[in-house]
Amino acid sequence: MDAYSIGVDLGGTNLRVAAIDSSGQVLNRVSVPAVYDAGPDRVVCDIVEIIQQVRARVDGSSLEGVGIGIPGFIDMEMGVVVGAANLPGFQGYPVRTHIEGELKIPIILENDANAAALGEMWMGAGRGIRDLLLITLGTGIGGGIIVDGKVLHGFLGMAGEIGHMTIFPDGNPCGCGNCGCLEKHASATAIAAMGQMMHFGNNEHEITAKRVYELALGGNERAKLVFESVGRALGIAIANLINLFNFQLYLVSGGPLPAWDLFEPSMMAEIKKRSFTSGRSGTRVERAQLGADAGLFGAAYLPFQKELYARKTAPLP
Amino acid sequence: MDAYSIGVDLGGTNLRVAAIDSSGQVLNRVSVPAVYDAGPDRVVCDIVEIIQQVRARVDGSSLEGVGIGIPGFIDMEMGVVVGAANLPGFQGYPVRTHIEGELKIPIILENDANAAALGEMWMGAGRGIRDLLLITLGTGIGGGIIVDGKVLHGFLGMAGEIGHMTIFPDGNPCGCGNCGCLEKHASATAIAAMGQMMHFGNNEHEITAKRVYELALGGNERAKLVFESVGRALGIAIANLINLFNFQLYLVSGGPLPAWDLFEPSMMAEIKKRSFTSGRSGTRVERAQLGADAGLFGAAYLPFQKELYARKTAPLP
Repeated sequence: MDAYSIGVDLGGTNLRVAAIDSSGQVLNRVSVPAVYDAGPDRVVCDIVEIIQQVRARVDGSSLEGVGIGIPGFIDMEMGVVVGAANLPGFQGYPVRTHIEGELKIPIILENDANAAALGEMWMGAGRGIRDLLLITLGTGIGGGIIVDGKVLHGFLGMAGEIGHMTIFPDGNPCGCGNCGCLEKHASATAIAAMGQMMHFGNNEHEITAKRVYELALGGNERAKLVFESVGRALGIAIANLINLFNFQLYLVSGGPLPAWDLFEPSMMAEIKKRSFTSGRSGTRVERAQLGADAGLFGAAYLPFQKELYARKTAPLP
Repeated sequence: MDAYSIGVDLGGTNLRVAAIDSSGQVLNRVSVPAVYDAGPDRVVCDIVEIIQQVRARVDGSSLEGVGIGIPGFIDMEMGVVVGAANLPGFQGYPVRTHIEGELKIPIILENDANAAALGEMWMGAGRGIRDLLLITLGTGIGGGIIVDGKVLHGFLGMAGEIGHMTIFPDGNPCGCGNCGCLEKHASATAIAAMGQMMHFGNNEHEITAKRVYELALGGNERAKLVFESVGRALGIAIANLINLFNFQLYLVSGGPLPAWDLFEPSMMAEIKKRSFTSGRSGTRVERAQLGADAGLFGAAYLPFQKELYARKTAPLP
């Protein structure tokens, strides 16, 4: 039997854990609601318990390690979350030390968007490709950049903040202090906000990205305009990325992905116009394939790359 | 005596060659006018001849190899120029094969902006740093991206086209087909063009970037506005780069660099506003230090990294 690893995806709603072997086959998986109200100690307890359950069920094979995808910035050297607006209580919390202390297994932490990009490279739309970039459309917009098979972290683990690329210098204001960030023009939140501006329905506060999508599918021209606008913003961003990285593959994922056919034409038109190099290369801009599982696969892939995550300090107890 | 290498900088005006040892000391250097009118065969002849001269003068030491910086896209595997708008006749020309055939020494070709970024890392403002990005302001705007000490090439050697990042989606038209490219708002050419729009002097066609600079130094408020505008465009671009790469160091170089004090305030204001991550990290945006020598040093550094440029095909004769 192949060696296997355990991937953990610490999401806003669910805590998901899967044992996956080195060929990408899922041996066992568990999903439970993530409980953040009681603080990070409780979350770590839950993670440890589920990992032990999964491990017990995949007996007789060698465990390579555990990878955990977390929605926040991570100090890769110390294994500490250094920025996680959506994980109350995790700021500065030594996630890795606590879990390793319980399990006595090497743990690798990774930002969730980075993990998703790795997952797509390993078992999704990027199979066989070593350089790619993943854009995840959600409440905000995240990104993961893979160079030669490795996550580009930057010197503080903050690389890949594609959602805060300035698309329109005087565009919609963003909580980060900027105006015109990509995520204020192309996230699910932005789709819902544009829907509200369009005065769809009776109760404007109930307009969701999904509702705008349904209206557009039904032929509503104003709803179609929303997705045309999303495509335009995404196209400007992706053209910039193509000019910078000259990667072969750029992937889009996230909740609004079913609307691909609605935003793809304006996105591609912008890319064609604005990308200096896309025309003479076989650049591909495509849908990601693993959906919400990308982060889980990517987290499980981390232990198979563990030499890249070797620590200078703080060896295992 | 240290091993040394030979760097070649094939510029628009001059062909410069230097022998540099592994500690960065220049052992010998030559600069001659670059003659392009007679075609690439003549240029290659000149390069070979000067390398032989320099080599003869640095006798008694071991030559590590020759690196050549070229203003164009390079097929790294084949050693062929695949895009060089400013080098007539070089499109598809097998530069490396021809020079290696004459010299029987391994040759490494590199894009000139990439070479300049390497040079700054080795012996300039980036000493001791492994991740940095260099922006070169000239007729256009070029860029070199260094990740973990290595040039980021992309899959066709076209990475780093920072000059064509869209800054203003409806900004000045660019020859690449886009509108609002950084280089149409912050290059030396853009400075001169904005100076012409400002109606400085009697003969508008004689307005150069240097003249706008002199006017601004002399207190001309409209000339100062030009540099404020340059700083704004550069700041938007660099903020995007900081959000994407989370590098420690971003360098600006090129002809307009003496005007740093004129564009730096508006540049830094945009960076502060638009860069999600610059505030909480020690991100530095600074002047490059090597001037026109950066590319020469970087070219000479290439043979010291030759394992990164190993070929899959086409061994030396």
